[in-house]
Amino acid sequence: MTTTTKASLLAELAPILGASGLLVGEQVQSRAATFWDNTPMRAKALLRPSSVDELCACLRLCHAARQTVVPLGGNTGLAEGTAATADDIVLSLERLNQIEQIDTVSQTVTVQAGVVLQCLHEQLAAQHWVFPVDLGARGSCTLGGMMATNAGGFGVLVHGMMRAQVLGLEVVLADGSLLSSMHGYLKNNSGYDLKQLFIGSEGTLGVISRAVLRIKPMLGGRTSALLGVARFEQVCELLQCMQRGSGLSAFEVMWPSFWELNTGEYSSLKSPLAGKHNFYVLLECQADSQAGADSACTSALEAAFAQGLLQDAVIARSMAEAQGLWAIREAYEAEQKRFAKVYGFDVSLRIADMQRFATDLDKRLKQVQPSIYLSVYGHLADGNLHLIIGSNPPLPETHAVEEAVYQTLALFGGSISAEHGVGLEKKPWLQLTRNKNELHWMRQIKQLFDPHHLLNPGKIFDRDS
Amino acid sequence: MTTTTKASLLAELAPILGASGLLVGEQVQSRAATFWDNTPMRAKALLRPSSVDELCACLRLCHAARQTVVPLGGNTGLAEGTAATADDIVLSLERLNQIEQIDTVSQTVTVQAGVVLQCLHEQLAAQHWVFPVDLGARGSCTLGGMMATNAGGFGVLVHGMMRAQVLGLEVVLADGSLLSSMHGYLKNNSGYDLKQLFIGSEGTLGVISRAVLRIKPMLGGRTSALLGVARFEQVCELLQCMQRGSGLSAFEVMWPSFWELNTGEYSSLKSPLAGKHNFYVLLECQADSQAGADSACTSALEAAFAQGLLQDAVIARSMAEAQGLWAIREAYEAEQKRFAKVYGFDVSLRIADMQRFATDLDKRLKQVQPSIYLSVYGHLADGNLHLIIGSNPPLPETHAVEEAVYQTLALFGGSISAEHGVGLEKKPWLQLTRNKNELHWMRQIKQLFDPHHLLNPGKIFDRDS
Repeated sequence: MTTTTKASLLAELAPILGASGLLVGEQVQSRAATFWDNTPMRAKALLRPSSVDELCACLRLCHAARQTVVPLGGNTGLAEGTAATADDIVLSLERLNQIEQIDTVSQTVTVQAGVVLQCLHEQLAAQHWVFPVDLGARGSCTLGGMMATNAGGFGVLVHGMMRAQVLGLEVVLADGSLLSSMHGYLKNNSGYDLKQLFIGSEGTLGVISRAVLRIKPMLGGRTSALLGVARFEQVCELLQCMQRGSGLSAFEVMWPSFWELNTGEYSSLKSPLAGKHNFYVLLECQADSQAGADSACTSALEAAFAQGLLQDAVIARSMAEAQGLWAIREAYEAEQKRFAKVYGFDVSLRIADMQRFATDLDKRLKQVQPSIYLSVYGHLADGNLHLIIGSNPPLPETHAVEEAVYQTLALFGGSISAEHGVGLEKKPWLQLTRNKNELHWMRQIKQLFDPHHLLNPGKIFDRDS
Repeated sequence: MTTTTKASLLAELAPILGASGLLVGEQVQSRAATFWDNTPMRAKALLRPSSVDELCACLRLCHAARQTVVPLGGNTGLAEGTAATADDIVLSLERLNQIEQIDTVSQTVTVQAGVVLQCLHEQLAAQHWVFPVDLGARGSCTLGGMMATNAGGFGVLVHGMMRAQVLGLEVVLADGSLLSSMHGYLKNNSGYDLKQLFIGSEGTLGVISRAVLRIKPMLGGRTSALLGVARFEQVCELLQCMQRGSGLSAFEVMWPSFWELNTGEYSSLKSPLAGKHNFYVLLECQADSQAGADSACTSALEAAFAQGLLQDAVIARSMAEAQGLWAIREAYEAEQKRFAKVYGFDVSLRIADMQRFATDLDKRLKQVQPSIYLSVYGHLADGNLHLIIGSNPPLPETHAVEEAVYQTLALFGGSISAEHGVGLEKKPWLQLTRNKNELHWMRQIKQLFDPHHLLNPGKIFDRDS
C-alpha cells in the first residue's frame, strides 16, 4: 500500500479524472479568479469530476495527502468565498450538471450540484412549474453553490431562502466519504436533520454533490408596481397592507440615494414617476392569471392610496414595462461610472430600525470622507438591506468604510451578512454578529467534520483557529 | 470548593429553585406520565425553573453530578419523547411562559419556551396577527416542545414546519452554559446556523429556553370545503389545480377506511356528502376577506369540477359548518369505541406512492390478523400520512404491527417519522429510514454536545451507543 503525498497527488488523480478532468498551469490561469474579478485564477490544479464517484475519489486522495481544497460552483459569490491560493486545489462541480428527475406529483426535482439555476428555471417553466429561488446571477450560479451559501434573492418573502427548498442532500465529506440524505419529503423528523449543517456553511464542512429540491406549480400572472412613499412608517404599513391577501411576492425598497443615482445623469434609465419621493417601493403580486394578478395588485394599491400610504404609483401594464421597473432595481451601471471605488454590503437588521440605521450610517461615513456616497436599497420585507458606498477619490483603505458600516450596524444588533455569506471578506467582522459561544461551537463543528481544515481553508474561520 | 454529587444534588437545587420550583415524591407522582397516559409520572424530582438563570443553574448542577435530565414541554408528544425513569430528573419549562415582545413592524415575536401555543394564537389574534403553525394539541403544547420536536400540523403546506418559523434561538447546553442566538432576521448567513441543530433534536442536544419566531398578518377570510374524489390521480391533480392561485392553505385527504369509521355507527358525526367516494379531501383557502376566500375557493372548485376531478363537493357557508367538517378530520372517538387496541403511525412518503402503500400495507396487515383495520388519512400535500390501525381482539404483540408498517414503508423509501419525532417509540426502526453514515454523524453530534449522555437519555439513540 502506497501513501498519497502532496508530491504524488496529481499523478494519482490523473487516471481517475482523465485529461479533461484535471487542469493545471495555463488551463487554470486562463480562467478568471471570480465572475467579478478578471485576474487569473490561482490554484495548484483545478479538478472537474464528472461523477459522484470521481468526486469522492478526489476528496479521498486530497485528504490522504492533507491537500487543501476549495469547492467551486458558479463563482458568482460576493464574499470571497471561493478565493484560492497557489497551494490550494480548486474542485469544480461544473460537470455534475444533470437534472436527474422532475417529479410533479411529489413536487420535487433531483439535481446534481453543478446545475445552473437558469437551466432549472427553463426546464421547469416548460412544464409550468417553478423553482422559487431567483437572483441576479441566475445565468451562472449553480444550485450547489446556492445551497452551500444558502442563497436568498427575490422570492424569500414568500418561499424562504435556499434552505427552505432543500428536502434531501448528498454531501461528500473531507475524507471522501459520502453522507447521503437524499430524502424527498417536506416532513422528516427521523433524528437530526444533518443537511441543515451543510446548507450555508460555504463549503467548509463538506462538498454538496446532489440534492432533492421543492418545486411549485407556476402561477400564470404577475404584476409589478412602483410606488412613491413619503414616510418610512408608511412603507412598513404598506408592506403589511399588501401581505393581507394581494398575492404579494416581492417587496423591494429603494432610498432616494439609490433612486437618484440609478435614474440620474450617470444612468441610461429614467424614473417613470414624475415627482421625487423619500422612498421608492417596487413590488410584485402573483395570481393564477394575469387578470387576477392585475386586479389583486390594483385593488390593494387603491386601498393603500385611500389610506394615504402612497404619493404616486405606476402599475406595469406589460411584461416589458415590468422589466423596465426591475431594471432600475438591478442596475449597477451608474455606480460604476460615477465612483472611482465602490464598496458593497449586505446586512440584516430589524425593519423598524432601517431608516435610523441609514441616517446614522450616512453621518458616520461623511466623517470618514465628506464626499462619500451611501446608496441604500434592498429586500426590506426580508429585513435585508444592500448598501452601495461610492467614493471619489478612492479612500486610502477599505477598512475605514467597513468599520463605519459594521460598527453602526452592531449598535442596532444587525447581522453582517444577510444572504452573501462570510467567506474571507467578512471574517474579520464576524464577532460583531456572533457571540463567543456561537463562535466556539462553530469551530467545534468544523473540527468534527474537517479536523485537518482541508475544506475551503480560511473561509469563515482562520486556517489555524 | 465542593463537588456536586447525585446525593447532594437536590439539596443544592433547593435554594436555587425554592419550594415551588423543586417537586419530589407525591408532588411528582400526582402528575400524569403524559397527556395521553394517566399512569403517575416517574422521576427523582421535577424541576420548575422560573428564569433562564435558574435553568442554567439546574443544568450546571445536574451536569456536575452526572445526573440525567428529561426536558419537558406540554407533554403532548406522540413518540415517548419525554418518558422518564425513577433515576431521571424531569426539567419542566412551564414557568418560563412569557411572551416577551410582539414586534409587528419586524413581524417577530420573542417567547420563552414554556408559552402554550394557544396563548400565543390568542394574543396575536387580538392584534390581527397569526403564528402560522397550528395543531390539535394547541391548548397544551408549548413552543419549546414544538421547536424541540420540529412540530408540523395544518399550516405546513404554505408556511413550513416549526423550523421555518424560528429566526433566533437560545439554548442551555448539557453543562449549563448558554448558547444564545437570539437573532431576529429572516436572513442571516453569518456563519453556521447553529439553531438548526437543536430544532427537531428532541431535547437530546440542549434545552431550548427562548426564541424569536416569525409572525404574519392575519388574513380575514377562510373557506373550507369537503370533496368526494374517485381516483387517486385526481386527488393529486386537484392539489396542483388548487395550488395555482386559490389561496390554498390546507389539503387533507382521508381514505374511505377513515371516513367510514369516523362517520359510521361508532361515531356521533355524520357525513355531509350524500354518496360514497374513494377519497375525501378537506381543504381550506384563505384570502383577505371572507368574500374573497369564498370566491377563490368556489371558482377553483368549479374549474376542477369542469375538468371532471370531483364527484361531489360541500363548501362550508359558516364558521360552524367549517368546524363541522374539520371535526371529522380530527375525530378519534370511533376508533376508541370500536377497537380493543389502537396503534398510531405518522409516516412520510412520495405522494405518488401513497395509494400503493396503503393497499400493500392493508394486505400485509391482514396477514398479521385478518380482522385488523387500517385507517389512512393525513396531510397529503406535505407527503405525510397518519395511520390508525385498530385490532379487536388486541394483538399479542405490538411489534408485528410496527414491523408490517415500517417494512412496507421501507420498500417505498419512506420516513418512519414525518412530524412526531423518534423518542423511544421509533428508535428500534430508525435504521430503516436513516443510513449508517447518517446514524454515525448523528451520534458524533450527540457526543459533541452531550458527551455524558445526560440530556433526554435513551431518546433517538440508546444510552450506551
